[in-house]
Amino acid sequence: MSEPIEVRRRLHEENDRRAAQLREQFNAAGTLVVDMVSSPGSGKTTLLELTVDYFADSLSTAVLVGDVATERDAQRIREAGGPAHQIITGGACHLDAHLVADGLESADFDLPDILFLENVGNLVCPASYDLGEDFKAVLLSVPEGDDKPLKFPAIFSRAAVCLITKSDLLPHLPFSPEDAVRHVNLLNPDSVILQMSAMNGDGFEEWCNLLEREHQAKRAALV
Amino acid sequence: MSEPIEVRRRLHEENDRRAAQLREQFNAAGTLVVDMVSSPGSGKTTLLELTVDYFADSLSTAVLVGDVATERDAQRIREAGGPAHQIITGGACHLDAHLVADGLESADFDLPDILFLENVGNLVCPASYDLGEDFKAVLLSVPEGDDKPLKFPAIFSRAAVCLITKSDLLPHLPFSPEDAVRHVNLLNPDSVILQMSAMNGDGFEEWCNLLEREHQAKRAALV
Repeated sequence: MSEPIEVRRRLHEENDRRAAQLREQFNAAGTLVVDMVSSPGSGKTTLLELTVDYFADSLSTAVLVGDVATERDAQRIREAGGPAHQIITGGACHLDAHLVADGLESADFDLPDILFLENVGNLVCPASYDLGEDFKAVLLSVPEGDDKPLKFPAIFSRAAVCLITKSDLLPHLPFSPEDAVRHVNLLNPDSVILQMSAMNGDGFEEWCNLLEREHQAKRAALV
Repeated sequence: MSEPIEVRRRLHEENDRRAAQLREQFNAAGTLVVDMVSSPGSGKTTLLELTVDYFADSLSTAVLVGDVATERDAQRIREAGGPAHQIITGGACHLDAHLVADGLESADFDLPDILFLENVGNLVCPASYDLGEDFKAVLLSVPEGDDKPLKFPAIFSRAAVCLITKSDLLPHLPFSPEDAVRHVNLLNPDSVILQMSAMNGDGFEEWCNLLEREHQAKRAALV
């Protein structure tokens, strides 16, 4: 069955071309773009609600939300005060550059200082798609287990930032933060790893500082 | 881009043909086959370790484990006393009937009374692949949130059994079992829903009884 491989290669090439155009557009606007990837229920939307609220008075933010079904997550972001546009992928288990480009055209906001792409909840396929982002951030929630980086190596190798979320549950679960960090570093020695909890605020300031620094660096490159 | 859709349709047809052959083979052997689907880290392997151990003296069991990478889960099942064979999917985010057929050929066990297919951790694509199973069981762990059925409707519509796992974490998380059941039933009014915890044994007996009943029904149909 050589056609599917050939078709997949061509689809990836088309995706990469579209992603390169998006990256030019984002760079020209000085927009920092972060592709957020995780399993379902790892806390992407909750983290984005808090992040959008944190920057409300300093930087403009917006979220493109990818889901197989429902407008629920975009609604949650809007209720938290951020512009958000929902991309319904239909059966697709990941965002691609075409979906992002179409989403931006339909969205009722201009390119902000920081644009978050909230990918479909899935640790496999989102790893292989360039969306024109500056970096991918992968979330690993404590209930998922510290072995997940080894089981889903592509995304943990490619994500520049790894957020260990729901750290407030550490007392209740057999999760070793040291093992998780070791597993991520085996795949990606340069990964920036933050331990976080939306319940008690653990790590949130570091996350926002990181975004602010990256946004400033992007703006500096623009001048 | 009509080719990918055409290619996908053909791939699904080929899958369904292979799955029908597998189903005949399973029926002839009186083997009950359960396709276990969930997000990464929802507790599939832990549940299978306990299940394999529970049936050790009464029924033969075996597990075909699908993962993108690592032999880790099959090792865990073997340590729990069950025959297990690991299928490494390479990039694929789901098992298909061809992978299952190849896995069975390479496995060092005969068809048992109950065969578990532990799918790749992913709530999207496994929903669309028939593996010749008697039924799919979808796991929804409490940390993932009670909204996940609505966000991943295909698998919750198609799975005859829904296991709400990690119920011991209910006191620590904003998860409403009533809402979860309501969401599942909206999609699938006939779904058998069990609330479970590997930590305190909640629901485990019901799960094993269900498997035993289904296996007996399958054997009865054989005679």
